[in-house]
Amino acid sequence: MRVNEFQPHTIKVIGFDADDTLWVNEPYYRETEEKFCSLLAEYAGAGEINRRLYEVEMNNMELYGYGTKAFMLSLIETAIQVSDGRITPAAISEIIQMGKAQIALKNSLLPGVTDVLDRLSERYRLIVATKGDLLDQERKLKNSGISGYFHHIEIMTDKREDNYRKLLGHLDINAGEFLMVGNSLRSDVIPVVNLGGYAIHIPFHITWQHETVDEGELPEGRYISVDSIHEVSALMGLGQ
Amino acid sequence: MRVNEFQPHTIKVIGFDADDTLWVNEPYYRETEEKFCSLLAEYAGAGEINRRLYEVEMNNMELYGYGTKAFMLSLIETAIQVSDGRITPAAISEIIQMGKAQIALKNSLLPGVTDVLDRLSERYRLIVATKGDLLDQERKLKNSGISGYFHHIEIMTDKREDNYRKLLGHLDINAGEFLMVGNSLRSDVIPVVNLGGYAIHIPFHITWQHETVDEGELPEGRYISVDSIHEVSALMGLGQ
Repeated sequence: MRVNEFQPHTIKVIGFDADDTLWVNEPYYRETEEKFCSLLAEYAGAGEINRRLYEVEMNNMELYGYGTKAFMLSLIETAIQVSDGRITPAAISEIIQMGKAQIALKNSLLPGVTDVLDRLSERYRLIVATKGDLLDQERKLKNSGISGYFHHIEIMTDKREDNYRKLLGHLDINAGEFLMVGNSLRSDVIPVVNLGGYAIHIPFHITWQHETVDEGELPEGRYISVDSIHEVSALMGLGQ
Repeated sequence: MRVNEFQPHTIKVIGFDADDTLWVNEPYYRETEEKFCSLLAEYAGAGEINRRLYEVEMNNMELYGYGTKAFMLSLIETAIQVSDGRITPAAISEIIQMGKAQIALKNSLLPGVTDVLDRLSERYRLIVATKGDLLDQERKLKNSGISGYFHHIEIMTDKREDNYRKLLGHLDINAGEFLMVGNSLRSDVIPVVNLGGYAIHIPFHITWQHETVDEGELPEGRYISVDSIHEVSALMGLGQ
């Protein structure tokens, strides 16, 4: 779709994904994983450790959901597995410390975010619509200094059509009045467009394996990909 | 306050606490703690283990918040501490399994809940207002068979005045239009009444140490304690 064909004139509420859309997140997970692989280097190579970690995370997804606490529990489980039960309690303490440090991090805001929110908030109701842990996301939003632009944070257990349908009910709007902005085709674009809503996709340079999607799954129309959040306000007719 | 003095005629929305108000929860934590103490029996007595677990939980509260994953991470940390680093990875695996089993549990609904919700839902918008983990609480609500009575679940990072103020903003109502029903004076009653709302307190036979409160902290008026959720519909003038 060309930019001039994207004309969502009916929008009332704009939902922003948080992690890697408003602020840096995935790179912090990658850093923790690198430290984790160093800690377990005597038991296996980084490739195998990451593969087994991903398996454990996927097996735990239904019970744990998303977020850093789920990640920490999966790291501990993976460490015990990969080491065949030889990991020391001291190393497990270190994993817990790594996780706590990641939770306590102040996530860097991505460039252009404040400016775009400033323009959009004049005309639209803005919300944060994110997976993960409410406490974590509220902390990140508070630390970011941009919480004043948002009506509230909507925490979703997952970002599938059902969850967006609930969100629209909760917001008391039709799908055609909703625009979602985010870095994940799978979570922020496809389900929203399938429901009849609009979406702007802003790819981030690192994507968690779980969020990747085949091109074939992409829906036709009503969404557009841009390189940076800078372009969102122009797309919505509010200048650059 | 006498029952006939409790006349909240202005209520539009009724918030229900979930754990130990709609369904059994705290006893499952106590069961896991008992198993945890048995697992660590060679290192310390149950009294000391529980005391140190509570310390670890309180130290982690700001970073982890509430919910079973936070509980699991604190159990692991406590096990390493109490055993002076002698705990085996196999025992840590067992703690993880205990936590997963607790997450997967189907929480028993408390008696009278369905009947009361059935009556109240005819006249009021009902929501679940709870701390803890969204995924956990959605799973419990889904398993409970009563999700149809609620407009949505409101997950709160904590239940203090600030959080309730946000909730009221989110619901677009004044404090005097809100009634909270729950088992915790500290979390469900005091902050709501302080804001100018109403509350019905239904004590549960087990209360987590963190939720206990001194009688001196109790506010005057606009809340009432009843023995069972059965009494709530009569209090709201909807028969018993």
